[in-house]
Amino acid sequence: MPAPRALPSLLLALAVSALGSAASRDPARDQLLTREKAMRVGGLLVLEEEEQLADQRLRALKEAEMLEAAQTGTFPPSMHFFQAKRLVERSAVFRVLQKMPKGAALHVHDFGIVSMDWLVKNVTYRPHCYFCHTRKGTMLFRFAHPSPPKPEPAECSEWVLLEKVRKGLQNVTEFDQSSLLRSFTLVTESPQVTYANQDMVWAKFQTIFLSLSGLVNHAPVFRDYIFRGLEEFYQDNVLYLELRTTLFPVYELNGTVHSLEWSVRTYEEVARAFAEKHPGFIGIKLIYSDHRFKNVSCIKKSVQTAMKLRAQFPRMVAGFDLVGREDTGHSLYYYREALMIPALHGVKLPYFFHAGETDWQGTAADGNLLDALLLNSTRIGHGFALSKHPAVWADSWKKDIPVEVCPISNQVLKLVSDMRNHPAAVLMATGYPMVISSDDPAAFGAKGLSHDFYEAFMGIGGVTADLRTLKQLAMNSLKYSALSEGEKKVAMEAWEERWHKFVAELARGPE
Amino acid sequence: MPAPRALPSLLLALAVSALGSAASRDPARDQLLTREKAMRVGGLLVLEEEEQLADQRLRALKEAEMLEAAQTGTFPPSMHFFQAKRLVERSAVFRVLQKMPKGAALHVHDFGIVSMDWLVKNVTYRPHCYFCHTRKGTMLFRFAHPSPPKPEPAECSEWVLLEKVRKGLQNVTEFDQSSLLRSFTLVTESPQVTYANQDMVWAKFQTIFLSLSGLVNHAPVFRDYIFRGLEEFYQDNVLYLELRTTLFPVYELNGTVHSLEWSVRTYEEVARAFAEKHPGFIGIKLIYSDHRFKNVSCIKKSVQTAMKLRAQFPRMVAGFDLVGREDTGHSLYYYREALMIPALHGVKLPYFFHAGETDWQGTAADGNLLDALLLNSTRIGHGFALSKHPAVWADSWKKDIPVEVCPISNQVLKLVSDMRNHPAAVLMATGYPMVISSDDPAAFGAKGLSHDFYEAFMGIGGVTADLRTLKQLAMNSLKYSALSEGEKKVAMEAWEERWHKFVAELARGPE
Repeated sequence: MPAPRALPSLLLALAVSALGSAASRDPARDQLLTREKAMRVGGLLVLEEEEQLADQRLRALKEAEMLEAAQTGTFPPSMHFFQAKRLVERSAVFRVLQKMPKGAALHVHDFGIVSMDWLVKNVTYRPHCYFCHTRKGTMLFRFAHPSPPKPEPAECSEWVLLEKVRKGLQNVTEFDQSSLLRSFTLVTESPQVTYANQDMVWAKFQTIFLSLSGLVNHAPVFRDYIFRGLEEFYQDNVLYLELRTTLFPVYELNGTVHSLEWSVRTYEEVARAFAEKHPGFIGIKLIYSDHRFKNVSCIKKSVQTAMKLRAQFPRMVAGFDLVGREDTGHSLYYYREALMIPALHGVKLPYFFHAGETDWQGTAADGNLLDALLLNSTRIGHGFALSKHPAVWADSWKKDIPVEVCPISNQVLKLVSDMRNHPAAVLMATGYPMVISSDDPAAFGAKGLSHDFYEAFMGIGGVTADLRTLKQLAMNSLKYSALSEGEKKVAMEAWEERWHKFVAELARGPE
Repeated sequence: MPAPRALPSLLLALAVSALGSAASRDPARDQLLTREKAMRVGGLLVLEEEEQLADQRLRALKEAEMLEAAQTGTFPPSMHFFQAKRLVERSAVFRVLQKMPKGAALHVHDFGIVSMDWLVKNVTYRPHCYFCHTRKGTMLFRFAHPSPPKPEPAECSEWVLLEKVRKGLQNVTEFDQSSLLRSFTLVTESPQVTYANQDMVWAKFQTIFLSLSGLVNHAPVFRDYIFRGLEEFYQDNVLYLELRTTLFPVYELNGTVHSLEWSVRTYEEVARAFAEKHPGFIGIKLIYSDHRFKNVSCIKKSVQTAMKLRAQFPRMVAGFDLVGREDTGHSLYYYREALMIPALHGVKLPYFFHAGETDWQGTAADGNLLDALLLNSTRIGHGFALSKHPAVWADSWKKDIPVEVCPISNQVLKLVSDMRNHPAAVLMATGYPMVISSDDPAAFGAKGLSHDFYEAFMGIGGVTADLRTLKQLAMNSLKYSALSEGEKKVAMEAWEERWHKFVAELARGPE
């Protein structure tokens, strides 16, 4: 048998035009291509002239990067994000995505939105910051004056003042980087080695929020954290956020603890103050959330709390969700009695359930997709397993329930390794309603939405994803938000204005 | 924030019953479950009483293994096959799958069907076996007497007699294992390190067939190889095979070279001789194949050769295919003129195209799926990218064109790492027609079909795949074969008889 010579990967590039052009002189083939083009996310959008120019330019950048990837065998979306990040940030496509007005971030968690570097360099340098180590080595923090209450020895070592510890150190930078920053993120050089399986990465993920809690729930930090979070997203051209929040009690230096209502009001105040200083910023809403490892009676109370909060803050509290690892937590079906409470009382409490964030098909966690649908979830968080559920898929589509796709989160939490195999690729090709979000970008070393948009645009969407795809994804983020119809109109206008500027700049190119 | 305790993974097991039972007292939920159950591969089969017992027993074994996997974090289908193989072979489910009459192997290549160990221990110990090394270090072989023609220095080193080399060795076993066996398989302890990307694994894959060629194309070996291949599949309870073969010239010791027709006749003779000694064995058919790196005029000739062979051997030659790596080879669209020849002459040449064996969506290789459909391919080899092509997917379904899913091949060739993310999971859940095959099992360290069935049943099918799934997959392999209607009837009866025995034994359990 003769040796098959490896043909130049240029074929990849040729491919683009072969599939893109409608000049194949084969009507049946053209019709297939046209049908598939129309089906996919954004496929029905008609681009204006300037948008077409911008699209051409974007596709040229994309094709050049894909060609390079095919030639070098290094394609960032097929690599682990921790290892791909530097490559992503060098990408011209990524820079376009950063500039693009992306609309809203609909799936982000309260304490995963600010680069952890800021916590280290700003928050942990504030006065009165104490820490201790749990038996498992997790760092816990507490601001207090004169000193925090003695911890239970079973829970933590003695509190020590961080300022004092730093004074005794020869290499503070080293301490900040390796002890502190490492406590706040999952980032590591060899994620495949550090996290051999999902249990290991989730175990670490949970300790991160344990460590963060004492820092970010301190009242002055809490305010600054929210402000800073909005800033990072605003800089990334995201103008509206819906935050999943557990509203864990915020405390003052003297140990006083605030109510949930105080937290909601603080979110509201900070967002208002932020909007005043940042033109075009639309605001935030909260999705009150509780943990899916609690028992039914706890969740019954939380559902009632959610109903109460939503009645008190109808413009701020959008609804309710359950958070935490689905594979090991309780299922929506387990909580059905709690989750039926609003309906029984004739109250509308919108749900935004995490569902199908699993690769175990046929398990209780996998079944969450059924119950999210049956409980009329407004959106589905992740829906990673949706395409394995054709009946739920069809019915959710009829009900226009979008999925919130968080590519990097899914990869870091070991649901998928190569983004080209992300199940959202099928959903994107069929035009299923979706938005792109970033879950806990700070824990993954990402920022805003752009890194996740890169993975979605280059990896999940394949060569075919174009400006239409991006425009639809951005518009979806407002369309499927919890904004009122009036708010949506205003938001859409603000977004459109920015979109036109973005398109004009992109069409003009090169940067 | 309190630490979410990791709940016992027993939830995984509970899940099975939660999803499996129809006693949820929620008609809408039951209806969704029932719809999804009916949709998936085998979902419409009604099991007889004994089959139900067998199914219960199989599911108990499966659940126990999945539970163990969830507890230990070690789930073979989510590991690389080279590392999972030992675990798979210890599995009780695997032993059931080995015993199961699996019907036919519809996607296997001529020289990937016999355990390479046999080549080392049997073939390379035959007299007059010479070898040389190419500049890149690939071993080439040649049987000759008195000696092979001098190789071109640019092509290979001087021929040396293997027998003579062995005589001079202190450790022959070491040589056989590390020099020979390693030349014949992709198997390695650290596949992630050895094959950093697809280019690297394909480069090695291609050298394997180069090395094998001189061995297996020697006439006496050729006959024995076919016989041995059928034996390995027969032992694995596979009674019929369709072999993709390039019909590379077979040679005698004196250098004489045989015609294509000779090869086809030899296949026919060996299969007949095999069937005489092996009750129930149905036979083989050939899918004549050529390489997709050749130019159009070469492929025009091959198509004509295929037409001629099919006219000469209508019961042996089933049709035509193009083989080799799709990403770097020419597309079906590129060959369209050649592939239209039979239709232009009013001749029916069935096609069995490899198509969509790629994760590059939107490229020429990815476009092969369109052209396989438009060229009325009888089946689709791999179809890994099919679910990303909703229009092709829908139309192929209407035309009842099955995909030949080869899980281990896809993993080893780096299209997917965790079988739970194999795109066939979506196809299986929606009930798309499919068969399971093993491509080149010997190159991957697998044998027959059972290893691939294990991956499909445990990984791709999730918890929900059951005896119905397996039965449908086995029946599909005959239904979608190139057997004539009459042959199919006979084959199906032979299979049914074996199926009943298998079911009775399984239902009786424990082994």
